[in-house]
Amino acid sequence: MTDEFFYGVTLSSSHQSETWDPEAKAEYPRSNKLVIRQALLGPDAKPDELNVIQVEAMSLQEAVKLPVAVLKVGESRHVRLDIEFPDAPVTFTLVQGSGPVHLIGHHLLGALLEEFEDMEEMEEEMLDE
Amino acid sequence: MTDEFFYGVTLSSSHQSETWDPEAKAEYPRSNKLVIRQALLGPDAKPDELNVIQVEAMSLQEAVKLPVAVLKVGESRHVRLDIEFPDAPVTFTLVQGSGPVHLIGHHLLGALLEEFEDMEEMEEEMLDE
Amino acid sequence: MTDEFFYGVTLSSSHQSETWDPEAKAEYPRSNKLVIRQALLGPDAKPDELNVIQVEAMSLQEAVKLPVAVLKVGESRHVRLDIEFPDAPVTFTLVQGSGPVHLIGHHLLGALLEEFEDMEEMEEEMLDE
Amino acid sequence: MTDEFFYGVTLSSSHQSETWDPEAKAEYPRSNKLVIRQALLGPDAKPDELNVIQVEAMSLQEAVKLPVAVLKVGESRHVRLDIEFPDAPVTFTLVQGSGPVHLIGHHLLGALLEEFEDMEEMEEEMLDE
Amino acid sequence: MTDEFFYGVTLSSSHQSETWDPEAKAEYPRSNKLVIRQALLGPDAKPDELNVIQVEAMSLQEAVKLPVAVLKVGESRHVRLDIEFPDAPVTFTLVQGSGPVHLIGHHLLGALLEEFEDMEEMEEEMLDE
Ligand SMILES: [Mg+2]
Ligand SMILES: [Mg+2]
Repeated sequence: MTDEFFYGVTLSSSHQSETWDPEAKAEYPRSNKLVIRQALLGPDAKPDELNVIQVEAMSLQEAVKLPVAVLKVGESRHVRLDIEFPDAPVTFTLVQGSGPVHLIGHHLLGALLEEFEDMEEMEEEMLDE
Repeated sequence: MTDEFFYGVTLSSSHQSETWDPEAKAEYPRSNKLVIRQALLGPDAKPDELNVIQVEAMSLQEAVKLPVAVLKVGESRHVRLDIEFPDAPVTFTLVQGSGPVHLIGHHLLGALLEEFEDMEEMEEEMLDE
Repeated sequence: MTDEFFYGVTLSSSHQSETWDPEAKAEYPRSNKLVIRQALLGPDAKPDELNVIQVEAMSLQEAVKLPVAVLKVGESRHVRLDIEFPDAPVTFTLVQGSGPVHLIGHHLLGALLEEFEDMEEMEEEMLDE
Repeated sequence: MTDEFFYGVTLSSSHQSETWDPEAKAEYPRSNKLVIRQALLGPDAKPDELNVIQVEAMSLQEAVKLPVAVLKVGESRHVRLDIEFPDAPVTFTLVQGSGPVHLIGHHLLGALLEEFEDMEEMEEEMLDE
Repeated sequence: MTDEFFYGVTLSSSHQSETWDPEAKAEYPRSNKLVIRQALLGPDAKPDELNVIQVEAMSLQEAVKLPVAVLKVGESRHVRLDIEFPDAPVTFTLVQGSGPVHLIGHHLLGALLEEFEDMEEMEEEMLDE
């Protein structure tokens, strides 16, 4: 079964980094996926300050660390990202600026993938009969 | 069966908050999901005023309350959100500004998920025969 | 079977309103869905004029009438909407400004939904045997 | 089987029009679909010039001819379109400006639709047994 | 089975070009697909400099080489692309400007396509019985 949850986190001077790592806390293994839809600079952000969100995540062959959003009042307060993280852990850090930056998206628990795997196994069992 | 409906709500000084909670009104239980595609500041909004939409919703582990849209005439009148709320209730509040802010999206009643669950049950029954 | 068609309509002073209502014209019932991808202010639109597109459509419980796009030369000529109308009729009206405003999207005839319903019926029939 | 290809075409004063018509060249019939993700004004485009891309395509009931992108250096160099053309032929024309305008997307050959039709036929045959 | 990975690469004066070619390194053949969600000009990019990302990839009938992103501080720091490359190799080159430009997306290994092909083969075998 696939479950889906709203996801929202706020980074600021007082909470500069957040790690998404649901597998570390899980009682039994399920696949997890995080989708970040947008980054939004809060209404009280300082004018003229560049706010930079950096992400650390695993790619196919290596760990990657790079900025994913650069936000500034009057220039780009909202950024649509639609970035997907199929593997935990993922760390978001406010590496420049004082924010607050709100990251909004959703968290999928038990991916659709499993459904197809199940179907495939079922098919194979049917063919074996 | 999955049903889908257009969804639109307007927040302003005279209607600052709206709670989406179809399950509370339902006669029999079906899953519900709300997708907000965009927030739009109406044509008569005041210039130079920041309008802030805050959302309160459940994430996997806790209730989350954060801004999802910051709108201002001449700067960002339209914001594409594409945020998904798989669980009711969700409350949208115009916490700053006088709007009007229009939230537009769609409401899914009886999610696709059920279809896959049905298929899975069916598969299991077939394998048991 | 699901058919899909490109959809485009232009609203202006001389054609201020358009109703999408394919079911009214259909010989036999099929589900219809309209997806509007973008609203675009034409190249000859007047500068400094606000153009407002209003939509009237059914939501789950009531008819809704609200603006979906506010366009202005030099500010927002293109707006990505991605709004979906699973039920006809839908009426688009240029309630302010002289346009032209082009609404672009696609029309689905016989939704994917039917496919799943068919599958579900099939499953039920198989289980009944 | 569904095949998918990257699609890119450049329109300019020296190549003002491009027709996408894969079926005309095909040896055996397969469904085709073109998705245009974005229009991009090239880095050497003239400042202060409006560039307009017009599309001609079939809708459900008639041929449609309308602008889909209006581009200008410093105002809107990139436009996200996500417009889908399920039927060839489609003609893109640079009706105003000297470009270059790059249209970028992908081309689907043998749509997912067929898969569902096949599944349905298969289901029907199973029920007939 | 379909695997999915976060993908991120940075182009700058010191690393102007990157070729994505997972098949060249693969031990056994699996289909690969690269999706680029956004291009982002890094926080330390020079003001007033145009940064141009060019892509070289195969389309259905020929190799295509064209710009996909034009970035400039204060004008367009973030560009949403959503371009899909179903065939390796794909080469991204920073042909103008000094960057850094971050390309962010995901890499699919063993496409959904295979699932459908498997299902189709299974269906054919069932019908042949
Ligand atoms: Mg399953
Ligand atoms: Mg098939």
